[in-house]
This record gives sequence, structure tokens and C-alpha cells, in this order.
Amino acid sequence: MPELRKDPVSGRWVIISTERGKRPSDFSTPPKVREPKMCPFCPGSEHLTPPEIIAVRPDGSKPNNPGWVLRVISNKYPALKIEGDLNREGVGIFDKMNGVGAHEVIIETPHHHLDLVDLPPHEIEMVIDAYRMRMSDLRNDVRFRYVMLFKNQGEMAGASLEHAHSQLIATPIIPKRVLEELKGAETYYGYKERCIFCDIIRQELSDGCRIVGQNEEMVALEPFAPRFPFETWILPKKHLTHFDKSPDKVYAGLASILKETLLKLKLALNDPPYNYIIHSSPLVDGSERDYHWHVEIFPKLTKIAGFEWGTGFYINPTPPEAAADYLNEIDVDAALRTANASV
Amino acid sequence: MPELRKDPVSGRWVIISTERGKRPSDFSTPPKVREPKMCPFCPGSEHLTPPEIIAVRPDGSKPNNPGWVLRVISNKYPALKIEGDLNREGVGIFDKMNGVGAHEVIIETPHHHLDLVDLPPHEIEMVIDAYRMRMSDLRNDVRFRYVMLFKNQGEMAGASLEHAHSQLIATPIIPKRVLEELKGAETYYGYKERCIFCDIIRQELSDGCRIVGQNEEMVALEPFAPRFPFETWILPKKHLTHFDKSPDKVYAGLASILKETLLKLKLALNDPPYNYIIHSSPLVDGSERDYHWHVEIFPKLTKIAGFEWGTGFYINPTPPEAAADYLNEIDVDAALRTANASV
Repeated sequence: MPELRKDPVSGRWVIISTERGKRPSDFSTPPKVREPKMCPFCPGSEHLTPPEIIAVRPDGSKPNNPGWVLRVISNKYPALKIEGDLNREGVGIFDKMNGVGAHEVIIETPHHHLDLVDLPPHEIEMVIDAYRMRMSDLRNDVRFRYVMLFKNQGEMAGASLEHAHSQLIATPIIPKRVLEELKGAETYYGYKERCIFCDIIRQELSDGCRIVGQNEEMVALEPFAPRFPFETWILPKKHLTHFDKSPDKVYAGLASILKETLLKLKLALNDPPYNYIIHSSPLVDGSERDYHWHVEIFPKLTKIAGFEWGTGFYINPTPPEAAADYLNEIDVDAALRTANASV
Repeated sequence: MPELRKDPVSGRWVIISTERGKRPSDFSTPPKVREPKMCPFCPGSEHLTPPEIIAVRPDGSKPNNPGWVLRVISNKYPALKIEGDLNREGVGIFDKMNGVGAHEVIIETPHHHLDLVDLPPHEIEMVIDAYRMRMSDLRNDVRFRYVMLFKNQGEMAGASLEHAHSQLIATPIIPKRVLEELKGAETYYGYKERCIFCDIIRQELSDGCRIVGQNEEMVALEPFAPRFPFETWILPKKHLTHFDKSPDKVYAGLASILKETLLKLKLALNDPPYNYIIHSSPLVDGSERDYHWHVEIFPKLTKIAGFEWGTGFYINPTPPEAAADYLNEIDVDAALRTANASV
């Protein structure tokens, strides 16, 4: 069973893999590039993965067989394990508990050589719908307080398999970084009686200099104080606290702006590795009023060094206004026409 | 002038380089490996760097000429600029100020092909003494509230030049990550009337399972809840709040244990890139009682991915007890004898 351990000074939790601990030599082995034949996420390899939790099978094919267009499975090497109780425990001045949680993989497409950005909007919407369904379902497990949805694209961004996939981890504690945002939003609400994200969106739409895209439902922008060059946020224009409780048209809007934004980043930055995460309100808590779910995208362009680790603040070599200009120079429609013509 | 900008939700500050903003194409250029002839940190290239702030010149040679064994200069491309006032300012709901601060480079040796770990302990002590002198001097500038000393070793750890060097950044704000530790230590002190670091050291020395080295003055250990595999902390055994106000024998003890620890990590992990940082009390504040300075070393073995960015907690594949076992298997004395024999 993995362990959740708390640093007694900073209060930061870490997940320690106690079972298959990596030895020193394990770190110098470069990751394998897998051929489609060897890829456990390709159709025909369903027996190599844990059984599917949900799948989209337009042809009515049987579970754990080919025929799917999207598949959600448990992670074969989970950071947290689904069985068991927390067993909170002290070890002298230290605190730990069992690493209980869910760790799932959303296989976004059966096609080994397509990335999320290459999928048509209705297929991206299917991926988003899988996110929603899984978050909604995990809400029923009273042990969990948070569900984090994220995507690692490219080896430098931490992906260990190249076949397009996202991941989900459900945790028994609300993560520190989310707590910071919740607290900031709550303080602002207490002071102004307005959502801070709604105020940011209002000011950004009025300024315009950091906006990189919008549609009826959603807006994409470079935040005022981005940690990383070309860090991009996507937010619903309306005040929505929980990702999985949004109106349907919001998911359609998200699919369309996510594709457009990822395409802009891909074209401007030569197909960079990236991470994105979805920040939503905790599953159960009192923050229904204050928080505003959103997506944060981080292209992996710079290396995090000692100063960042030591201080927790970041040196960003590209002002967000300049990043917005570069992204807005990209002719997405032309790129989409070319892409569609070549399919 | 760089800008310090605050994220209105999380309260996180970032440094935005507004002057020489990096363009998209700047990120895809791989860093150059410099020959000693082209290296601005090598003797004979003093004209390529800003003038030295301090230097150790046993031969009495003139400033900014060869003859030095250690040299401290301003960073030629500083993240923060030394001139000017803060000019705190609001931009609608956003906050910013001028990026005022100091950014210095400590060139640890004139020899291009030596790393810090290769230096004899008395030369490492000289580097540490330079850290102490610079922190002590910057204490006199009332604009600064914190000095962060750090080292990036290897390109993957963010070093842009291979010649052995450390850096220092003085900031007008206390960094978030330091604040978290200060707050944790203060809370614990308020509850127990004891320093939390002193209590950790007591428990670790008694347990023994995470200790990787010690001498009269210092102890090196794998922390209970490490973010990264083989993360290692070095702490003075006695309660010392400010790095630059420690007794002389502590610096000698630090030099010796730092060399030993870096050597163990180098041998166990095949010369990994790494960062280390020195966490000390803020220059001026009320935490004289609670905090305990220390060094945190992070070998760069894993990639930080979406989950870590999104949650702020870390998945560590090597339990610290196992890491301690691996490091304690290294015969440092034998390695030192071999190293000395080959010099």
C-alpha cells in the first residue's frame, strides 16, 4: 500500500511508493518508445490493461475488446490504491496514512498516432464527457475529497506512454495548491461579495491584451502572473463552481476552445510537450459559492531550477501580453482547413 | 525593469522579464556547450562578466584579472535589478511592483572541469564563506527581505553554464515556500515551545533509519516526506536561525558534510543533475526564535507532471528509508582516497 506522508514543517503531503520502490539504477534507464504493436493502449491490447471502467463503443462491441473509440481503465501502476481505509497514524512527530485513492487513465482515441489536438471537436467533447462522468461517479465514494483531472503530453512533460491519454487521481485530502486557490477566492468573496475569477474574466475581456480566444461559453487567456511562458487558462464565462455539474453547452464550448488553444500552442511553439490540469471545487465542502472551475495549460519550455524550488516563485521570460500576441498571430482556421484536407 | 506580479487568486508572486522577453523560437534552441576558451567564468575571461563584488586572490592579483580562486559577480542577465524603488502599483484587480533585487553568481573555482564535489573541503568552505559574506552584506539593504542561495548543477537542473557556480537572489518579499515553513515552525513553537527542526533532528538521530551522515556540527538525512527520490537535507545539530550568523566551526562542518553527501549522491546515482538551496530566516523579521536554517538537495531524477503542478503534492517512487540505505552503502572514504590519488 502506498503511503501518504505529511511534511511536519510545511504541511505538504507526498505519496510514497513503498511497494515497488525505484532503485538508483532505475532512474538512468531511458523510457522506451513503443511501437503501436507493443502499446497497451492500442485496440487489440485490451488484455494488457486492467478491465475498463467505462468505454464508448458505437458498434456495441463487448467490454475489453476492440471496437471502442474511448476507454477508461484503472492505472496499472497506481500512485494510490482503491481498496482499504485511510488508517491515519502518527510516527513520533510525523503523520501518515494509507495511500487510498483512485488512479484512472482515459484513453482518448484508439489511434496510436493521433494526439488530442488532432481529434475533431465532437471526439474531444467525448473525452471531456468521460472526465465529467468519472468525476461524477467518484463523488459517491465518501473517502474522497478531491478529483484531479490532468494530461501529460510528451516525455518531457512526464508522459510514460505516447498513446494519447489523460489521467485522473481521486484523493482523500484536498491538495495544497487547490486549497490556496480556494482560500484566495474565499477571502476575495468575503471582501467583495464577488467571485474573483468572474472579476478577472470581466477585466481581461475589457482589456483584451491577454485574451487568446473565446466563444459563447468559454474564454482562453494568458493569466496576469503566469508561472511559465505561454501558460494559458481556459475558464467558463459564467460562474460555475464544479466541473462535473456544468450545463451541456459548456462542455461543447470547452471542446472547441481546447482544440483551438492547443492548436495555437502547437503551431506557435513547435509542438511542445505540455501538461494541463482541471481545477474544480472539492467534491464535498463549503466552497460552492466562491470557486470557479478552470483549465490550466503549461507548455513545458523552461526548466525548473533551484530558485523556483527554494522560493516557490517563478521566473517567467515571456510576458503574458507578448505570449498572447504570438498566439493571436496563428491562423487557426487556415491550420484547421489544412488538417481537415489531409485527413 | 523586470516586474514582480502577484496572482490574485493564490497570492503567488512571479518575476516577469519584460525587457528581453523570450520569443517562441528562443525555446527550441538547445543550450550551447561551451569550451573552456569560450567560458565567461574561466580565468582570462573576466572582461566578459560584470565587475567582481568580492574575490579570493591568494596571490594579491588585481580585481577582474586572473589569479583568483573564487569570484562573486553580478549576474549579467539578472532576474531582478539592483537599481530603483519598488513602486507598488495596482492594475485593476491585479498587483505588481518593480523587479528590484540582487542577482549574483558565485564562481566556485577557476577550474572549468571541476565540480563543487571535486573541491577539497577547505575550498568548499571558501564557497560557503562567500555565501555568508554576501548574505551578511545584503542584510544592509533595507529594500530586501530575503536572500536565497542556490545551486543548479547540470543542464537538466536548469544550469545554463557548466563551469561550477552557485547563485544568490535577494528579494523584496519573503518567498511563499519560505513563508509556509516559517509559519509551520511558528505554529509548532507556539504549541510545544520547541523548534520543530530540533525535534525532527532528535527523532531522526534516535531512529537512525533516514540518517545519511553526520559530524560534530551537522547532520544529513532523507526527510520523512520527501518530494523527490533521494531528496536530502543537511541541518546544523544546534538551533541556529540565520545561516550567516552561525559559529565558524559550523561552516567547516557544513563543508565537510556537503562534500560527503554530494559525493554519495554522485556515486549512487551516476552523477545526477541536482539543485540545492539554503533556507535561512528572513533578513529582518520576528522569527529569530522558531526557524532553523538548513540545506535542501534535490537530485533531478524524475519529471514533474500534471498531477504535481495541479495539486502541489508529489509522487515519490523511492521511500526515504530505502534511499538512505542506498546512500549508506557508498564507501565515501574509498572514493575520496581514489579521488585524491588521481589529483
